Amino acid sequence: MIEDKNKPKTSLADLGEFGLIEHLTKNFKIKQESTLKGIGDDAAVLDFKDKKAIISTDLLIEGIHFDLSYMPLKHLGYKAVMVNLSDIYAMNATATQVTISIAVSNRFPLEAIEELYEGIYAAAKTYNVDVIGGDTTSSTKGLLISVTAIGQANEEDIVYRNGAKANDLLVVTGDIGAAYLGFQVLEREKQVFQADPNNQPDLDMYTYLIERQLKPEARRDVSGLLKELEVKPTSMIDISDGLSSEIIHLCKQSEVGCNLYEDKIPLDQQVISTCEEFNMDSTTIALSGGEDYELLFTVSQEDFPKIKANPNFTVIGHMTDASEGMNLITRSNEKIALKAQGWNSLESEE
Amino acid sequence: MIEDKNKPKTSLADLGEFGLIEHLTKNFKIKQESTLKGIGDDAAVLDFKDKKAIISTDLLIEGIHFDLSYMPLKHLGYKAVMVNLSDIYAMNATATQVTISIAVSNRFPLEAIEELYEGIYAAAKTYNVDVIGGDTTSSTKGLLISVTAIGQANEEDIVYRNGAKANDLLVVTGDIGAAYLGFQVLEREKQVFQADPNNQPDLDMYTYLIERQLKPEARRDVSGLLKELEVKPTSMIDISDGLSSEIIHLCKQSEVGCNLYEDKIPLDQQVISTCEEFNMDSTTIALSGGEDYELLFTVSQEDFPKIKANPNFTVIGHMTDASEGMNLITRSNEKIALKAQGWNSLESEE
Repeated sequence: MIEDKNKPKTSLADLGEFGLIEHLTKNFKIKQESTLKGIGDDAAVLDFKDKKAIISTDLLIEGIHFDLSYMPLKHLGYKAVMVNLSDIYAMNATATQVTISIAVSNRFPLEAIEELYEGIYAAAKTYNVDVIGGDTTSSTKGLLISVTAIGQANEEDIVYRNGAKANDLLVVTGDIGAAYLGFQVLEREKQVFQADPNNQPDLDMYTYLIERQLKPEARRDVSGLLKELEVKPTSMIDISDGLSSEIIHLCKQSEVGCNLYEDKIPLDQQVISTCEEFNMDSTTIALSGGEDYELLFTVSQEDFPKIKANPNFTVIGHMTDASEGMNLITRSNEKIALKAQGWNSLESEE
Repeated sequence: MIEDKNKPKTSLADLGEFGLIEHLTKNFKIKQESTLKGIGDDAAVLDFKDKKAIISTDLLIEGIHFDLSYMPLKHLGYKAVMVNLSDIYAMNATATQVTISIAVSNRFPLEAIEELYEGIYAAAKTYNVDVIGGDTTSSTKGLLISVTAIGQANEEDIVYRNGAKANDLLVVTGDIGAAYLGFQVLEREKQVFQADPNNQPDLDMYTYLIERQLKPEARRDVSGLLKELEVKPTSMIDISDGLSSEIIHLCKQSEVGCNLYEDKIPLDQQVISTCEEFNMDSTTIALSGGEDYELLFTVSQEDFPKIKANPNFTVIGHMTDASEGMNLITRSNEKIALKAQGWNSLESEE
């Protein structure tokens, strides 16, 4: 959309930094009771009363974390918020506020930044979080977004990574691997388009995969679902770097091992069919793909009856003594050591 | 220092993202009682008890906000923390935590990032704030640092920008204009060095200016000083964009006007002599230079006896009815409308 020649283009320099911030944030309404002061002073002021404050932050950089040739700016804004809220939900907390900082090169007209903020606004509205501050500046190259998400929780409800015990069940929400395959589909279409710009792609077969890549939803619902079921996880983490890497984090911090069962990993039908088409192994994609923004948690065995019928949750393994290591039990009943093969975002070239 | 060929160079890709974070943050100790959980989970957990939480965030980008040809990385790390703490102090609050996110291109070896973190560590230690999280990723170009600062305050102590009343006194801490002149001196030396690399600059005359540019200190002390004097400002802001721009913010948000007296603006002797040398007007530098990280505040007239003898504070004017406008009263007693001419960081080119 930033290439649409018919739209008016407004230079960011004409507005200036303060004008831009005012223009972009004038529609943000404060809804959270804990927000005493949002945008407009040196800092925001929040009141968590007897609750604890939960803080997480992430950077998204053009050319590293997203490609604007197939990522609409509105989706990018939405996703930047989701990535951060997911970390708050992974603490079993409620997300309440975000700060949004962006750096843009002068390649972007105001209308492009407005699209980005439409996505941010949509995410904030849907997930009921206040945008309470940020910074807006220019970059020498491309677009970058830095989000800090803030949440709150009662101390007794907070779930850390380090509480898993041997024999606890390992549970994942939703299904895994679709976001990475969505990325693969979009990358392929980009190559096709570059070779022949008149080629119109038919992406109907991949709608779920593409949606998971371009418009992920954070699992805001899980904390409430677990509360209703009267289950408190013993440990929890969000799946942003691939199932394998996140299981290893839980195991190391909890000082336990685990057995993950290949045949239990929840895969969407589009993941299975697209893996066949791309000649990829669906287990490898689930283990190492990343960006699913589902939650991974452990529960005591005695909670199994409470969660087993819930379609949001799949038991994919169990924790063991640390001495047994971290293993994948394959469909053919072989035991293979889990490896962290999440995307390593530090390997790109300048 | 990143050009020193004798030092070992370690590629960031060899460490990986998690290895890098662990390596850089292993020396950070948690000291604040309000930090329940720092680095190492999906999010940090903080407990402000009956105090309010104060949150501010800033982005610093290579080529826009700093130039590594004369900004040592250790100083940059220190300054990135100062810029953010200054916003917390401007709320009359205590800074307690920071999150640090960095993006680096593969031009930087591990040793360079270690230097940056040495500066961050020094700032955190000196100012007694905990580093509780962040993100580390690669960039396609240069270095960028995103800091979120967190503080706490009793609700009755918080000072906003919007409380100034007509007849309140306008007060500034420290002196103004030195940071911008330090930048001018360093820019000139860079040109000289590029023309003749054997030319050794003599910067003894500019030590204060250069220190204010390369190693600014945030005014952590002001909140305590005011408490001791039993003065609560009616409004407060930090001076990062130049005195003029910040006075205009205070006036607009408080719906008042002001008279600023040119002959009252506190200038260091090096500012005066260097302005003469550079043929610059010292008042213009003070009004529009920026980056001083001093605090600007207003107090009721009846508090004048309490602050008049304090060497940290200078009364530079007074607030008026909004109808009188925002004015500079010159040495020759002329009244000139104040303009916001702070650095506009949105004007750079890609």
